[in-house]
Amino acid sequence: MSNRLRWLLLGSPLSTQQENEERLGNPHALAVFSPDALSSIAYANQEIFLGLAIAGSVALNLSFPIALAIVGLLIILSLSYFQTIQGYPSGGGSYIVARENLGTFFGLVAGGALLLDYLLNAAVSLSAGVAAIASVFPILAEYRVGIALFLLAVITIINLRGVRETGKLISIPVYGFLTIYFGMLIWGLIQVLRGALPPGVYAPLPVSEPLTLFLILHAFSTGCTALTGIEAISNGVQSFRSPESRNAGKTLVVMAVIMGLLFLGSIGLTQYLAVIPNAHETILSALARRIFGSGILHLLIQAATMGILVVAANTSFAGFPRVASSLARDRFLPRQFQALGDRLVFSNGIIFLSVACGLLIILFDADTHLLVPLFAVGAFLAFLLSQTGMVIHWLRTRERSWRIKAVLNALGAALTGITLLVVWITKFLDGAWITVVFIVGVVYLFLRIKSHYDEVARELSLDGLPPTLRPPGPLRVIVPIHSVHRGTIEAIRYAQSVSANVIAVFVELEPGSGEHIRQKWHAWFPELPLEIVSSPYRSVIGPLLAFLDETDQRYNDSQLSTVLIPEFVPVKWWHGFLHNQTAWGLKLALLYRRRRLGYQRMIIDVPIHLKR
Amino acid sequence: MSNRLRWLLLGSPLSTQQENEERLGNPHALAVFSPDALSSIAYANQEIFLGLAIAGSVALNLSFPIALAIVGLLIILSLSYFQTIQGYPSGGGSYIVARENLGTFFGLVAGGALLLDYLLNAAVSLSAGVAAIASVFPILAEYRVGIALFLLAVITIINLRGVRETGKLISIPVYGFLTIYFGMLIWGLIQVLRGALPPGVYAPLPVSEPLTLFLILHAFSTGCTALTGIEAISNGVQSFRSPESRNAGKTLVVMAVIMGLLFLGSIGLTQYLAVIPNAHETILSALARRIFGSGILHLLIQAATMGILVVAANTSFAGFPRVASSLARDRFLPRQFQALGDRLVFSNGIIFLSVACGLLIILFDADTHLLVPLFAVGAFLAFLLSQTGMVIHWLRTRERSWRIKAVLNALGAALTGITLLVVWITKFLDGAWITVVFIVGVVYLFLRIKSHYDEVARELSLDGLPPTLRPPGPLRVIVPIHSVHRGTIEAIRYAQSVSANVIAVFVELEPGSGEHIRQKWHAWFPELPLEIVSSPYRSVIGPLLAFLDETDQRYNDSQLSTVLIPEFVPVKWWHGFLHNQTAWGLKLALLYRRRRLGYQRMIIDVPIHLKR
Repeated sequence: MSNRLRWLLLGSPLSTQQENEERLGNPHALAVFSPDALSSIAYANQEIFLGLAIAGSVALNLSFPIALAIVGLLIILSLSYFQTIQGYPSGGGSYIVARENLGTFFGLVAGGALLLDYLLNAAVSLSAGVAAIASVFPILAEYRVGIALFLLAVITIINLRGVRETGKLISIPVYGFLTIYFGMLIWGLIQVLRGALPPGVYAPLPVSEPLTLFLILHAFSTGCTALTGIEAISNGVQSFRSPESRNAGKTLVVMAVIMGLLFLGSIGLTQYLAVIPNAHETILSALARRIFGSGILHLLIQAATMGILVVAANTSFAGFPRVASSLARDRFLPRQFQALGDRLVFSNGIIFLSVACGLLIILFDADTHLLVPLFAVGAFLAFLLSQTGMVIHWLRTRERSWRIKAVLNALGAALTGITLLVVWITKFLDGAWITVVFIVGVVYLFLRIKSHYDEVARELSLDGLPPTLRPPGPLRVIVPIHSVHRGTIEAIRYAQSVSANVIAVFVELEPGSGEHIRQKWHAWFPELPLEIVSSPYRSVIGPLLAFLDETDQRYNDSQLSTVLIPEFVPVKWWHGFLHNQTAWGLKLALLYRRRRLGYQRMIIDVPIHLKR
Repeated sequence: MSNRLRWLLLGSPLSTQQENEERLGNPHALAVFSPDALSSIAYANQEIFLGLAIAGSVALNLSFPIALAIVGLLIILSLSYFQTIQGYPSGGGSYIVARENLGTFFGLVAGGALLLDYLLNAAVSLSAGVAAIASVFPILAEYRVGIALFLLAVITIINLRGVRETGKLISIPVYGFLTIYFGMLIWGLIQVLRGALPPGVYAPLPVSEPLTLFLILHAFSTGCTALTGIEAISNGVQSFRSPESRNAGKTLVVMAVIMGLLFLGSIGLTQYLAVIPNAHETILSALARRIFGSGILHLLIQAATMGILVVAANTSFAGFPRVASSLARDRFLPRQFQALGDRLVFSNGIIFLSVACGLLIILFDADTHLLVPLFAVGAFLAFLLSQTGMVIHWLRTRERSWRIKAVLNALGAALTGITLLVVWITKFLDGAWITVVFIVGVVYLFLRIKSHYDEVARELSLDGLPPTLRPPGPLRVIVPIHSVHRGTIEAIRYAQSVSANVIAVFVELEPGSGEHIRQKWHAWFPELPLEIVSSPYRSVIGPLLAFLDETDQRYNDSQLSTVLIPEFVPVKWWHGFLHNQTAWGLKLALLYRRRRLGYQRMIIDVPIHLKR
């Protein structure tokens, strides 16, 4: 039954040979990797407005200049990443670029930063998506955590199905969003040019802070969250059809152009029409309502916004597992993140991301404004390390026109570095400090995991072991018995087939019961020793453990006794409660001692099958 | 550390020899077994009032006559149980008496009824205890579930410490309660005789139902909850010092007299003074306030009431595990209820009762009035079966003066039967139907458990087995390996010491990796076979299971292959997440298949110890 459910939700397994067929065409790839970037207008605009509004309505006229600065940064970053794709055609995420050029440590910082950023992107996008639809139906705002978690579950299942199907499914919302938004912006522009939409004047707003440089930089840095999706394509070059890097580069350029137009267009119109949001409505919703009125078109725009935001969260599900897999391949994360699942996706990474994102949504109450200060820090840190790494890369490889490429990447690194500093300083107390703690912690964890795996590899190494090995001495097998019945006899027969040195042990709870067992025992196994252990406190496990230790000491042959545990296998599940308490207790006690003593015995489980 | 906590909470283990020293002197025994009966005035009075009040204030004058009828029943029941104690000096709970005289089925009905009654007594007493103290501090009413659960936890821990200490600890609240209550009743009587407390007149109450016979019987049947503790002593004869039945009989008479006086005294004064309760205050609290005013004495009375109710819940902790142990000894309940824990108490029964009672308190919101309709049915059913059983007992044994004893028990049975009928009819829809469902269900469960144990005993019987057994053929041991390292070599060496027929198996996830392993393998174990299983869908567990099944078919020697699972034993707990995923997955899959296929393989756990 669980297999049928699995098949229904996730589809049938895909074989390794099918991997190549899962590659994406450019339009599908754009749909998979761009939503993070494209959708960010849904929250970046809003954050710029909120950042400026506290200095009064005059400050709001700085929205467009700030947007221009951000688009400038977008151009530099796109060119930088275009070069990264050419330099790392096999997929050059910030982690790989930084590790190869700046060393392991900076690679890990980039990797941790990227993981954090993907995680936050998923949480922010889902929260903003719910806010978009709640702008039309304010009653939904109350249930935003539940709705966000439901969307998260849907995305998780879709991603566990595999990359190509993800690409197909999400093309609809992505291209739907682009059509509708460009339609709105063009129609808005036409109306403005026709004079049907006159320029707006901001109503005076209460001024709570003066318009300082810090405040402007703060608004700029919150707006920079718009840029967080830009590196997605460079991480996923391997998902493109060949020639991979050419296709990836083209797709990156198309994405950057679309994004720049959307961002400038929406912010430009918002400022020209002096649109302001309110507590129940996002700024984009207010803009759409100004252009189209409160009708079906407004609803359509908001639905499309939610759609793109949900698939933006999806971008994280493409990126996070890839980075985790790279880290796991280098032994900085547990092995299981490395493995492709049976649908050719990194299932463990997807599941981990989903759980972490769900916790974040619950913790931050699905509130975009609370989550945004944490956002962007991770992304810009990764950008900085990646760009710096690329400069080193060009200096080292001296490929064709390396000078101009190095200069371009250096420019990108410098601008990113300045932005990162601004973001960090202006948003530190708002929550950016959490990201610092997180990145430091996660890098420490990476290093600990790696050093553990290295240590294990050293311990398990075969160097220095003689090629022929002495066969070990005969085992000593100890079988705890409760009474002499068919099951006991099966267990003892099995023990005898394992070793000639079998010792049975009986724990005497009621005085005198040992003698009774001994007589029965000798009738069946006249030659096998049976030891009777008395238990004045009526405990079974304690005396058994003591007997095991004592036997090892008595024999003193540098061998731990093996414990053979007979276990009943009932036919009906509830019969399980009626048997095996001692077997489970003994196993649990051996496990607990393993933690305490640092060693564990060999255990042989012998099932005794019951027929009814 | 968990051992030290255990010692602190529960004390050191007690040896079997100490069992006799744990017997109780009569005053302590009274404190252990009587609180259930004595404390019931705290809710029975209230329920009689609530039952009559709906017919208006005139009906309230029936309180005292109803109390008289209940005390009449108390006298008959006490005499009956006095005889039971003489007839069953080794402890004659309803379960044993009914089973021996009426047959297994009625014994089980009595046993199930008793278990239910003990459970409800604990829940009702704790709820009423919290209500008593909330009558003084109304703010506590809001937190009643939490307070009741806290008290439950305290009682559980005290009981896990053992019987004698329980007796000592609870003597204080029991004798404190008796002193204070008799003091109040006597002082009230003196005041009445002096004329300082004039007779009250009930204010007119809204009449919602006419005063029918049904209504009177309903009030009577709710009042009968007062009698539910009467059988406790007869279940626990074994806890008394010898001569057990003499001591138990004496204690029963003392308990019945005290209880009758308390009940008649409190109801008599309540009616004489026309005391009525309100939503925030119990009727006993109102009575105490009338006699003593709202001072320190009133608080003291309420504290004593809570105290006796808490130890009344404690009575269930003495009785429930004993009945469960008797049922387990006869194989109607899982074996673990039979065993004495290391403090000479039936620990498993105590823990089970505690959990069930906690759930009941949460489910019924710690509301006495909701719980009471379920109560008493179980007790009276057990009484009926016990009394009827005693009639048969006397007819069979024909001991000295058996005629008069049989008549007395028959009278008890008849009255109990009538009362049970009344209780059932008048409270069926209020919740008594739940008890019918419960008792039917639990008797069915008893019979199923017994039949399972009987079946297992038949299956495991040695009858017909030849006394000398052919030794089994050599084992086939299959070792799944992941790579060739020191751990693999340890595991293979162990496998070789178990059997000469060892097969290693490697699941090839990446095409080509198998060849690499094979070369390394042949350098180390030139003579041992290594099988390579390809896995196109990158799953490890599935191909391994298929290989096991296929190997068994290939050899076709009526033997299931044994699986040897090497497992890393890390030093630090969190390293566990970095290893053994395949080992755990394989074990889980084998367990899951056990459910599905009905058989399980032998499993050998070989620990590979890591040093750091």
